[in-house]
Amino acid sequence: MLYTSIKNDKIKNIKKLNTKKYRDEFNEFLIEGEHLVLEAYKKGYLKELILLEETDFKLDVATIYVTKEVLKYISDLDNPPKIIGICKKIESKPIGNRVLMLDDVQDPGNLGTIIRSSVAFNIDTIILSKGCVDIYNSKVLRATQGMLFNINIIESDLLQVIKNLKEKSYKIYATKVNGGKSLKNVEKSEKFAIIMGNEGNGVKNEILDMSDEYIYIDMNPSCESLNVGIATSIILYELDK
Amino acid sequence: MLYTSIKNDKIKNIKKLNTKKYRDEFNEFLIEGEHLVLEAYKKGYLKELILLEETDFKLDVATIYVTKEVLKYISDLDNPPKIIGICKKIESKPIGNRVLMLDDVQDPGNLGTIIRSSVAFNIDTIILSKGCVDIYNSKVLRATQGMLFNINIIESDLLQVIKNLKEKSYKIYATKVNGGKSLKNVEKSEKFAIIMGNEGNGVKNEILDMSDEYIYIDMNPSCESLNVGIATSIILYELDK
Repeated sequence: MLYTSIKNDKIKNIKKLNTKKYRDEFNEFLIEGEHLVLEAYKKGYLKELILLEETDFKLDVATIYVTKEVLKYISDLDNPPKIIGICKKIESKPIGNRVLMLDDVQDPGNLGTIIRSSVAFNIDTIILSKGCVDIYNSKVLRATQGMLFNINIIESDLLQVIKNLKEKSYKIYATKVNGGKSLKNVEKSEKFAIIMGNEGNGVKNEILDMSDEYIYIDMNPSCESLNVGIATSIILYELDK
Repeated sequence: MLYTSIKNDKIKNIKKLNTKKYRDEFNEFLIEGEHLVLEAYKKGYLKELILLEETDFKLDVATIYVTKEVLKYISDLDNPPKIIGICKKIESKPIGNRVLMLDDVQDPGNLGTIIRSSVAFNIDTIILSKGCVDIYNSKVLRATQGMLFNINIIESDLLQVIKNLKEKSYKIYATKVNGGKSLKNVEKSEKFAIIMGNEGNGVKNEILDMSDEYIYIDMNPSCESLNVGIATSIILYELDK
């Protein structure tokens, strides 16, 4: 079926998925471009395919065609790709042994690359505080390169989760610029959680207080800090060695 | 002096610094926000300060005041900061012993974080191919967090530079997904250059062919690759240990 009008109710509802409110209400989200659509399809999250009319692309899911005008209306990008997908939201699974916690990470690019690096370095669960940017935000999704379909992601209250994990003998690491252990010397633990903080403010004090060990990354003193996506990835790389 | 009109010639010339063409012509660039302005000032690159009228901020350079409307006109941001600076472009110095080469890195955020990480991990010279995004692009500058004032940056033809460095016994590393040495096992060299490639295409083949050693970062096979800013930073971290 070809949709030609942006006033069509179905099209209007698809467009709404660009806002968190409606993603939460419909329990769905949009992904743009062939690569992300294929990743979603492989993992069974793709519900429906939206193609620019005459695009030669087939997957075994419900498919609609739209005009260029409709595609531009739906898309969050200045140059919409010919292929867009509607996905069902990913269901959370129980917490694994290798955990990353993010305390109010707000930049979509940072969250996306952190998800991508987490898959690369064998983190099995990411726990997001309520103050983190929505993982279904289109910029986050693009930066993940589809890797969010390969990892368990949970939104929760970090303090409560840390309490539970400590009872289960997880080692809790947090980053702190002053007064910690150099990442190079950190002893690895079979069950662990690493807490990384907000771009400007770092990890909240009440959360820092609950950590077992503070770690820092050695660096030249003329550089005050690293980008949070970079710092997280270096720590995950080192703990995965 | 207070400037109230966006039609003023001086204001129009400042605005032009948002485009590469005029940055090259005037040999100047704009930086926005107190943090970047202070970094530029400390290193002697700040030529002139542009302040929102009534802003209480003083540095020992020429200073003009502007209205909110003029500030919004000059700024590249949706929410302009009260403090903007005009800087002279940074002069390149001779190539040091610890070199990073970037082959057509095009995302401003990536280039900016790579510059920041390079300072953190003691790279002394970054060499950019002509196809890289302009380092004076406002998004690059923001992502550097001012660190571009702490490192030597050169734009040049990479093939030519590699030839010269090889004659001077630099070890040339490049990243390659298949058929290289794991980063963990790379032997460090006193004089080296690491080549990192474009976001989509990696390092060009003709440049790869000139490398002494290919390196890869061990990762979970479900993740094809890392973001180039992340991969670069992990390599620099490891080589700095």
